[in-house]
Formats: sequence, C-alpha cells, structure tokens
Amino acid sequence: MGSQYPQSVRVYLPLWALTWEVAFILLFLFFTSYDTGPLDGRNLQRYHAVFQDVAVMGALGLGFFTSSLRRFGWSSVAFNLFMLALGVQWAVLLEGFLEKSFTVTGKILIKLSSIHQAAMSAMCVLISVGAFLGKANLLQLTLTTVVEVTAFEAVKTAFRHIFNMNQHESMMYIHVFAAYFGLTVAWCFSKSLPKGKEGKDQTATSSSLFAMLGSLFLWMFWPSFNSALLGSLDGRRKAVLNTYYALAVSAVTAISVSALARPQRRINMTHIHNAMLAGGVAVGTTCHVISSPWLAMILGLLAGLISIGGVKCLPVCLNRVLEIHDTCGLHYTFGLPGLLSGITSIMLKMYHVSWTNSPMIGYVALTEIGVLSLAMAGGLLSGLLTGLILKLKICKAHHVTKYFDDQAFWEFPHLAVGY
Amino acid sequence: MGSQYPQSVRVYLPLWALTWEVAFILLFLFFTSYDTGPLDGRNLQRYHAVFQDVAVMGALGLGFFTSSLRRFGWSSVAFNLFMLALGVQWAVLLEGFLEKSFTVTGKILIKLSSIHQAAMSAMCVLISVGAFLGKANLLQLTLTTVVEVTAFEAVKTAFRHIFNMNQHESMMYIHVFAAYFGLTVAWCFSKSLPKGKEGKDQTATSSSLFAMLGSLFLWMFWPSFNSALLGSLDGRRKAVLNTYYALAVSAVTAISVSALARPQRRINMTHIHNAMLAGGVAVGTTCHVISSPWLAMILGLLAGLISIGGVKCLPVCLNRVLEIHDTCGLHYTFGLPGLLSGITSIMLKMYHVSWTNSPMIGYVALTEIGVLSLAMAGGLLSGLLTGLILKLKICKAHHVTKYFDDQAFWEFPHLAVGY
Amino acid sequence: MGSQYPQSVRVYLPLWALTWEVAFILLFLFFTSYDTGPLDGRNLQRYHAVFQDVAVMGALGLGFFTSSLRRFGWSSVAFNLFMLALGVQWAVLLEGFLEKSFTVTGKILIKLSSIHQAAMSAMCVLISVGAFLGKANLLQLTLTTVVEVTAFEAVKTAFRHIFNMNQHESMMYIHVFAAYFGLTVAWCFSKSLPKGKEGKDQTATSSSLFAMLGSLFLWMFWPSFNSALLGSLDGRRKAVLNTYYALAVSAVTAISVSALARPQRRINMTHIHNAMLAGGVAVGTTCHVISSPWLAMILGLLAGLISIGGVKCLPVCLNRVLEIHDTCGLHYTFGLPGLLSGITSIMLKMYHVSWTNSPMIGYVALTEIGVLSLAMAGGLLSGLLTGLILKLKICKAHHVTKYFDDQAFWEFPHLAVGY
Repeated sequence: MGSQYPQSVRVYLPLWALTWEVAFILLFLFFTSYDTGPLDGRNLQRYHAVFQDVAVMGALGLGFFTSSLRRFGWSSVAFNLFMLALGVQWAVLLEGFLEKSFTVTGKILIKLSSIHQAAMSAMCVLISVGAFLGKANLLQLTLTTVVEVTAFEAVKTAFRHIFNMNQHESMMYIHVFAAYFGLTVAWCFSKSLPKGKEGKDQTATSSSLFAMLGSLFLWMFWPSFNSALLGSLDGRRKAVLNTYYALAVSAVTAISVSALARPQRRINMTHIHNAMLAGGVAVGTTCHVISSPWLAMILGLLAGLISIGGVKCLPVCLNRVLEIHDTCGLHYTFGLPGLLSGITSIMLKMYHVSWTNSPMIGYVALTEIGVLSLAMAGGLLSGLLTGLILKLKICKAHHVTKYFDDQAFWEFPHLAVGY
Repeated sequence: MGSQYPQSVRVYLPLWALTWEVAFILLFLFFTSYDTGPLDGRNLQRYHAVFQDVAVMGALGLGFFTSSLRRFGWSSVAFNLFMLALGVQWAVLLEGFLEKSFTVTGKILIKLSSIHQAAMSAMCVLISVGAFLGKANLLQLTLTTVVEVTAFEAVKTAFRHIFNMNQHESMMYIHVFAAYFGLTVAWCFSKSLPKGKEGKDQTATSSSLFAMLGSLFLWMFWPSFNSALLGSLDGRRKAVLNTYYALAVSAVTAISVSALARPQRRINMTHIHNAMLAGGVAVGTTCHVISSPWLAMILGLLAGLISIGGVKCLPVCLNRVLEIHDTCGLHYTFGLPGLLSGITSIMLKMYHVSWTNSPMIGYVALTEIGVLSLAMAGGLLSGLLTGLILKLKICKAHHVTKYFDDQAFWEFPHLAVGY
Repeated sequence: MGSQYPQSVRVYLPLWALTWEVAFILLFLFFTSYDTGPLDGRNLQRYHAVFQDVAVMGALGLGFFTSSLRRFGWSSVAFNLFMLALGVQWAVLLEGFLEKSFTVTGKILIKLSSIHQAAMSAMCVLISVGAFLGKANLLQLTLTTVVEVTAFEAVKTAFRHIFNMNQHESMMYIHVFAAYFGLTVAWCFSKSLPKGKEGKDQTATSSSLFAMLGSLFLWMFWPSFNSALLGSLDGRRKAVLNTYYALAVSAVTAISVSALARPQRRINMTHIHNAMLAGGVAVGTTCHVISSPWLAMILGLLAGLISIGGVKCLPVCLNRVLEIHDTCGLHYTFGLPGLLSGITSIMLKMYHVSWTNSPMIGYVALTEIGVLSLAMAGGLLSGLLTGLILKLKICKAHHVTKYFDDQAFWEFPHLAVGY
C-alpha cells in the first residue's frame, strides 16, 4: 500500500530533513573545532567505553524497546536512529554555546566527552517519542528533536547555573523531563484521534523478543549511564553498585508482581520490560551518594511496585480522563520512577542537613522541590509548545488529519517502512 | 488460555517470590556495607568492563541460548533474568559469609569485584535450568536458585580451603557442577512425565535466530569469562588467547561435523550453538597455564567432536534408559566438555609434576581426581536434594501433577508468559 | 527436503572443512608460540576491548547484516561464523610469516594484538561473501576464505613495504578490496545462473529486524574498527570523533533520502542498513588526519547520497549489463564509499603537499592513485582466480550445476541449515 500523501509532500518531507542536516554541517563548519590538547591514554579508553555504552543504550536499547508495536517494529528502530543521530549533533552545538567552552579563535571546542554528554541529552527525545510513536511523520520528528533538545539543554543550564548542580545531577532529571514532555505532546495529538480507536490500540500492543532484547540492553548498560558523568572514582563506584542493586531488585519485583496485576495471573511481558528498568531510573539522582545497598534495593522494590501499579491503574485515569494515549507506557517506565527519584533526592538532602542541626533545612527542601518542579514544568511547557507546533498545518502537510480519522495510526503508510 | 491453578495458588506464587526479595533486602540491611577503601581508576574501569561482560553473558547470552523452545521463548528470557537477579543477591551474601570478608563493624564488605564474582556463581543456576526449563513454576525456580547457589558456594569454599585452589580454578568447575545438578533435577522431574510424550518433545525443539544470537554473545564474551577472576596479567593474556583459539576451532568443528551427524547431511542449528561453545568450556580449567595455541586448538577440536558425538548418541542412552529429558542439550554443551576440561587439568598437572621427577605424581593425580569428583558429586547430590524438595506437595502447589499428565509441559499456561 | 547430493559428496564436504582445521592445528604446532614478554595492564585491557569490539562486528554485525535474505538467515549467520573462525587462524599464521615476527627459536610470536589484526583481515571474507552468499557450498566457502585472506595479506604487505604505509592505512583499503573481490566472484558465478531468475532474486530480498540489529552493531562499533590499529592517542581521538560524525550524518541522510529514491516514497529498510554504514567506510582512510568535524560530516553526507544513488542506478547497470547478482548490496555499501574514501585520501594528501609548495605534488598524487588501484586490482584479480577455482568440477562436487539450473539458489538444500 503506497502513501496517500500527494506527490509534492512526499518529496518535501525527506528534503526538509536533509536541509536540517546541511544546516548542521554549516554550523559545525563555522563554529566548531576539535580539541587538540594533551590527552591521557586512560581517559581516551574510558571515554570511548562510555560513549559506546551510551550508543548501545540509545541506538539499540531504546530503538528495540519501542519496537513492540505490532506493525511498527522497523520504523521504530529506524526513526529512533534518525533522531539519535540528529539530536546528538544539535546537542553538541548547544552544549558548546551554553557552556561557553570556546577556543581562542572563538570556536566551540569539541572534546571526546562532548559526544557521550550530547548522546545522553539526545536520549530525552528517544524516551519522549515512546508516547507518540506512530503518530508523527519525518518532519514532525525532526522538529520534535530540535525543540526538545533545546528545551532540555536550557533546563540543564538553569540547573547548573541557578542551583549549582553538577553535570551528573542535572542529567538525571532527564527521565521526568522526557516523560512529561512526551505525555503532553501525546495529549496534543490525542485531540485528533477519534474516541472509538482506543480499545483497539491497547490490544495491538503485542510485545516481542525484540522489545525484550532492547530492555535487556538498557538493563545491562544502565550502570554505565548512571556513572558516566561522575568525576570522582568513589562516586562512580557507588553509582555502579547502587544502580546494579536497584535494577536487580526491580527485575525480581517486576516478574513476581506482574502475575498479580492481571486477571488471569499470567506474567505480562510488557509489564516486565517496563518495570525492570524502573529501578535504574529511581536510583538516578541519588546513586552517587547512597552508601548502603539496602537503600538502593528498597528504591528498586518501590520503583518496581509503582511501575506495575501504574500499569494497572493509570490507563484508566490518564487514557480515559485526559485522553492521553501513552503508546509505550512512558509514564510508568520513566515518569513515575523519575518522580520517585526526585523525591528520594529531596529526602536524602533533608536528612543530611538535619544531621548538621542546620536551620537551612527548609531552604534545602524548597530548593530541591524547585529543581523537581522545574524539570516537570520544563517538560510540560516545551511539550505543549511542541505539540502546538506539530499541529500547525505546515507540519502536518496537506490533509494529514484525514488519515488520522479513518485509519488506526499504526497503519499509516507514510510512516511505515517498506517491506 | 488462562492458568488452571486455583485462584489462591496464583496469588501465592508471586507473593512467595516477593517475600524472598524482602528477606534479601533485610539481610543486606543488617549484614552488609559498601567498601569505602581507596580505589584505583584502572581497577574501577576493569571491574566495570568485566561486570558488564558477565552481565551480557548471563542476562542476554544464556537467556536467549535457551529461547529456542518453540513456545517458550519469552518465559525463558524473563525467568532467566529473574534467577540471575535473585541469584546474584544471594551469592553476594553467601560469598561474604564464607570468605569472612567482614568490616570492623562486623558487616560484609561489598567490593566492586563482588558483583561479577557473584554473577558468575549465579550463572550455574542459569546453566542448570536448561535441563528442566518449562517444567518448573516461579516458586520452584526461586527454591532452585537458592539451593543451587548455596551448594555451589559450598563446593567452591571446599575447593579453596581444602585443595588450596584460587578463585579462578574453583569457578571453572561450574560447568560440570551445573550440568550434573540440572540433569539430576530433570531426572527427578521426568518421573512425573508420562512415557509417550518424549518423542513429541524432541521435534518441538526448533531453534531460532534468537538462540543463535544468545550463543554468539556467549561465544564472543567467553574469553572475558575465562579471564575475569585471574590476578596475574600473564595469566589473563594466556586465558584470553587460549579461550579464543579453542572457541574458533570448536566453531569450525561444530559447523563441519554437524552435517555428518544427521541422516540428511544438513547442518543442524541446535548442534552448532551447542558445540561452538564446547571449546570455551573445555579450556576453562587450564586456560591460564596452557602455553601454546595448538594445545588449546586440540582441546577445542576434541570438545566440538565430543559435543556433536554426544548429540548423536546420548539421547538414546540418557533419555530412553535413564528417562532424563534434557531440554536444551545441557549434557553435551556443558557436561561432557566440562569433564574434558577436568581431565585435561589432571593430565597437565601430572605432566608438570613428572618433569620435576617428584614422587608426588600419584598424590597430585588423586587430588585432581578428587576435585573433579567433588564437583560432580556436589552437583548430583544437591541436584537430588533440589529435585526432592521441588517434588514436595507445597512447591508443586495444588494438583500440579494433574497438568503434567495431560499436557505437554511447554503448554502449561502457568509457565507461559502472556502475549 | 533432504540434500540432492549423492551420499559420497555429503560426507566429503564436511570432512574437507575438518581437514583444513587439522592442517591449521599442525601449522600452529610447528610454527607458533605465545608472546611471553612483559605486559602492561593498560595494554591488556585496551587490546581485550578492541578484540571484543572487532569480534562483535565480525560475528554478530556482519553475520546478521547479511541475514536479510528470506530463506537464508540461519545459514548466513552460521557460515559467517565458520569463515570468521577459519579466516582468523589463517590470517594469524600469514601475518606472522609476512611480518617475520619470529622468536629466537624460529617460531612466529603470537601477541595479544595479533588476534584483532587477524580478525580485521578476516573480515574481508565476511564482506565479500555478501555478493555470492547462498550460491557457495561449505568447500567453496573454505577455499574462498583461504584464497582471499592470502590475497589481502599480500596486498597489505605490498602497501606496507612498497608504499611505506602503516597498519591502519593499509587495513582501510579492505572495503574496496573486499567489494571488488566479491563482485568478481559473483560475476563468475552468475554465468551458471539462468537469466530468467534475476527478477525473482530481487524481490526475495526481504529485510528483517535481525538485519537491522546487525547493521546497528556495525554502526555502533565502527569507531572502534577505525581506531583499532592507530598507535598515537591523538590519532585515535580524531578517528573516533570523525567516524562518529560521519556515521551520524550518513544515518540521517540514508533515512531522509531513502524515501526519495522509491516510487511510492516509502522508506526502504535495505537502503537504510546499507547507506547508514557508508559514512564509516568513507571516512576510513582519512579518519586519523581530518581535523574538523564538518569535513567528516560532508564525507558522511556524500557517502550516504552515493550509496542511495547506487541502489537506485546500479542494479540496472551492473545486474543487467554485467550480469552480476550482488545479493546483499555489497557494491553500494562497501565498494562506492570505499572508492570515495580512497579519493578523499588522494585529495587530502595533495592538499597537504600543495601547502608546502613542494614540487612533489605529482608524485604524491601518482602514489596515492597507485595505492587505490592496487587495492582494486588485487580484489579483481584474486576474485577472478577464486571464481575460476570455485568453478572447477572438484569444488562444485558432482552435478552441482544441475541444481543451479532448476532451483532458485536460496532453496538449495545443501546450503540450507535444518529447521
């Protein structure tokens, strides 16, 4: 089945994506140069390993994680790679501008560490897109990538300069930001979808071994993600150990509890590959300071329970009341565990301050609540902005709404990748 | 098709698994604390890499290795992760207790190296389960994990304290231990299976590209497994090189000889992904001392031939005579090459002693035979114990035998993971 | 369906492959020994990581990359592993002889770095075989492996000794060599194929998520491939960064432009997994000297466009006129981007010389053109030789041509791996 777009649009969409790429090349030409400073062999090796782990998580883990939609496996993997490759380039440029890491000739200095930092920032797009995958065309995905990366970099800069947070701490709010960005965009899209379709969407979400493969890669490399941006050796050691314990417990919890949450008491694969990652998300903001395994394990247990509980309860609240159609379970994989992570951070900071008998406890609590709120608000606002932009006539191309009305979204020929 | 368990049992099984998890968290709370000692950057990097390789082998390699059963792919991957996550926690605790690595406050010190050691020990469960996968429910898998990890840690402690073996040497008997443990448990299970079913089981064992993916990951990361616990740089170099050569030769042998072993002379994928790993198993105990590539290559050749020979001959002997149904070819992938590895170790040690003209040759031979026998006996006895426990009424839940009688085991709804 | 070979041939093919393996073991026995010199911990770690990345690219990436043929997935992965394992052993021996790295006892010294160098050389066979996969039996694949590795090692030695190129530079012509080798062999084979079959072949090339998985692994680990053989830290840093930028741009280009190249404007998965790798190939020879990201990005853009353009135009020219049937799109994935890489190298060298106002510019240009021509000519000539050998009666076994005439090649029972 060929695309029902008119010929002009079908040429226009790919050319638009290509234009962005050419613009990026020009920006790199005028504004960047490689770091040629002295280099330590161990750092080169470490950065290469970290960069590879992050690439595996982004291209393979998140690509296959969302490949469980029945008719959408190929497109999901290919568009995921497209957004990763585009997002990394934009994030490298933005981080250079915002961090003002200029050379003497006024150019942005591209270091080895730039790439994995940029790839981690670009992963917010890959997470968000889980909520509206299959409803956006190539042009809309390009716009989403550019807007979301810009918004996330802005939020991170605010964290670093206003709240004095380091690279690691500001990055760890990515899950909350991305989840609420994605949900807001999905909410904007849902207005165009007729009501009767929702039941059909749910049942079509059949998961496969490929989705499990993606989840396993995320699970195995999450300790790298949580420790990638930490400077101190002790912080990295703690981050690896805590993340591992939290993930192990949330995997056990996910598989045990999944059977309880379903009427027939059978284990649901979708539950598992959402909930087994919840531990890694939940331990994010605090993984470098938690000093005992049991605390990370309790976070993993809570995150697993919250995630499975969310699967059970949220579709009713969110999907029916707010009319958000959360394609890949974004809210309970990244959103709720991300909130848990933020709340843990608030409590741990308050606990540490309370030991010093300092009168600052109220101030610390307010600051931390402000950080979490900023991440959420940033996600919601930029998501709303993106949703509105994507609904502009020019982005939807001609008559795109027509196709949303008479076809289930995963059957859109202009999205599908040819067999 | 929903589970035919009564409602009470369906709630009981997941809660039981969750109870174990909560018990583990309490044990970690009271008995463990992180190592906060000084840390070398290179060690951190090395341990992280090793830990990641072992995680890939356990979660992905062994998970997909056993995914070739036609109706059991998802459950196999999910239960594999469950047992890995549970087994690692228990193994960390046990190794701490048995090695008496306590802090001044009487707590077990959790080091970075603890996790990959524990993950390697927990892999014995993942290997064993290949022999009875699809016949055990969540409660039975939990019990198997706890009993087998305990038994294997006990055997390893005996090796280290009685026979003065190091971490690496004692770990390398994992294949023999796990294979005979699994076969004994499968033997206990087989009593419940009616005789007429066996023919049907065999033909259903269709392998897939996913099983090949799992095997390839095991094949590629096996040099990491065999060199992970070695302290000396020269030992690690030899282990990596020898393992690689043995694996290369056993892969070539497996693919060449497979066609000979079948009436239609077609290559059988199941043969290949069993036999291509045999080289890595066979070189295990001696990989750090073999000093020429040709010796490792001959071991790889022999292991490949034995493995393919086993596929051809063993089903008749084992499955018909002893009534063991070896679901995933455990005996010829890990059992026989593991024995070859043990025998090679005996011969190499005797050869080295004979050069020194020492009268100790008989003593050395006896000791080494004792080590191999202890690994086998430990596997057989603890497997028998586990098999008997798993056949207790409480583990099988109500009326579980009824379902074994009138259904092929892989069709059990309570085991299957929902679509 | 069983093989239609007579019984004698069916025994003969596997035994032949096994004989080669035994011959290799004997060669290793008489001519090699391990390096027992002093060792640096960091080098061990680096070489192990590099060796693992190359193994992942070879066994998994290239294995699954060619698994997109509808009926040929398993055979492709298994035969790929067979050729990798055999090729590595032969390449280690050959490199030792040609580099004359002998010990005092006259044996070849096998170092840790030998394995990844040999694995990279052996990858030329895995690349070439994409052009005639499904048309060769086990004996023919064995012969191809031995002849091609020998020819490639000879070309590399010529590069190093005549043109004074280093390990990295001589290795990077692997793509051009392998592509033209494969195409020539495919051209020799095509004479045996009846004309009416070609249309059928094309449509059967359905790609799958497994092929995408293979491509993603190649994409993610390509920076390791391009930086593996570089000695200087700064060269490795540049190689990693340039390769990454080129790959990112060629992925974006591939996905954008793919839709333009097809009548229905749908994205073609085969285009994507060919073109997304083109950037990594194109930047190969110059990745360690390019000093700005935009140059690598432009190479990635050009490579992506050339690769997609090749898909569009070449099947008409090549397949119809020259009667070459390029099963896996070898020419536009490796051949054309490899030529682009060679031309870039010529231009960059001339540009650098022109800055020095040296009169040597003509000499430099001629040398570089000579290098590229030698790689192409080597591939073409050794490919022709191999093609002629493979068409000898003894290699085709009895009456093999008969089966080529009345069956589509991917249905050959002697090639297929049993279900």
